[in-house]
Amino acid sequence: MRLRNIKGSREFITKNPFVIQNPADNREKWHQIFHNRNPIHIEVGMGKGQFIHNLAADNPNINYIGIEKYSSVLYRALEKRAETELENLFFLRIDAEILPDIFIKGEVTRIYLNFSDPWPKDRHAKRRLTSPVFLNIYDKILSADGCVIFKTDNRPLFDYSVQSITGTSPWKCHHVTYDLHKSEFVEGNVMTEYECRFVELGLPIHRLVAFR
Amino acid sequence: MRLRNIKGSREFITKNPFVIQNPADNREKWHQIFHNRNPIHIEVGMGKGQFIHNLAADNPNINYIGIEKYSSVLYRALEKRAETELENLFFLRIDAEILPDIFIKGEVTRIYLNFSDPWPKDRHAKRRLTSPVFLNIYDKILSADGCVIFKTDNRPLFDYSVQSITGTSPWKCHHVTYDLHKSEFVEGNVMTEYECRFVELGLPIHRLVAFR
Repeated sequence: MRLRNIKGSREFITKNPFVIQNPADNREKWHQIFHNRNPIHIEVGMGKGQFIHNLAADNPNINYIGIEKYSSVLYRALEKRAETELENLFFLRIDAEILPDIFIKGEVTRIYLNFSDPWPKDRHAKRRLTSPVFLNIYDKILSADGCVIFKTDNRPLFDYSVQSITGTSPWKCHHVTYDLHKSEFVEGNVMTEYECRFVELGLPIHRLVAFR
Repeated sequence: MRLRNIKGSREFITKNPFVIQNPADNREKWHQIFHNRNPIHIEVGMGKGQFIHNLAADNPNINYIGIEKYSSVLYRALEKRAETELENLFFLRIDAEILPDIFIKGEVTRIYLNFSDPWPKDRHAKRRLTSPVFLNIYDKILSADGCVIFKTDNRPLFDYSVQSITGTSPWKCHHVTYDLHKSEFVEGNVMTEYECRFVELGLPIHRLVAFR
């Protein structure tokens, strides 16, 4: 997601108590940030953060970290954050490429990818968050039983992702659905802002779970 | 595939030396039919048999069994069989439902499904050869390292199959491609009659490998 630039958003972010500055300093020590050893779930490319806020409110025994590289987008999530009293939700303004500098292997048990940028041009395929490049990055931070849960309305991106995951060892696809809201997997599904709009329009959402 | 009825095809089949009659009698003893203990690969819904004939000719150390339920279709494959001197290729005229009566667990190491009947109506989904019903059947005859290799030009059937496989424990999808002939997996690919025609027309072939 891209928003128009919000003046001062970068400065606001560096001073916000819910944004962890210098996150690499917490590598292997995230439990100290949360004051517990609950599992950590992250969302990469969080957008305005409706999804992760709802998850954090529903699941107090799970720690959430929302990751967003655009300051103007993260700014919107922080506005939402200010209205809540959650103790299990923090944010990072980083590129997903550096995730292994932020977490040790096993420190994350779930990665959510929601409506990620499709990067439709072939020459940009590596930038897609389900490319082999990123799968290898996720492999470096996920626990043995960890997984990636991916939702999108973009069918070419979804097809690319199925190919990428089934072709990148040791990754495997589980629970593929081309129409989440007509599938058995809709139970417990938490919707993103985008998803609400697509579902209102009657458009199908595609979803899969990638395990190793 | 369906052909118009060929008169006398059923009688021809019951007398053909390459068609195993009463195949359940050979359960656990297929090595006696082939006079060796080489791995057995089967094709379910073989059609006119070009694919399995080529495989059998190229791989003398693998035993092949072509399975086809329509006599008039199997008849065409037997005409082709009569022109070869292969020792590693036999046929069965059976329904795939009874495969566990024909083979014990582990007796088959690979199952090929090529351009299977899409059964497009929802109420016929169970008849699709990649439905959970059939996956459970294949599970009962495949070796631990065995797999199902599935090719089709029919995108709805392919999408159904990805969902069915990723949703049916313990099955997993590997190496999904939506355009086999532009993928790395084309190397070593043996074409079926249908496939030749689709490729000539420039239409994409979809392929996946299902493991447990």
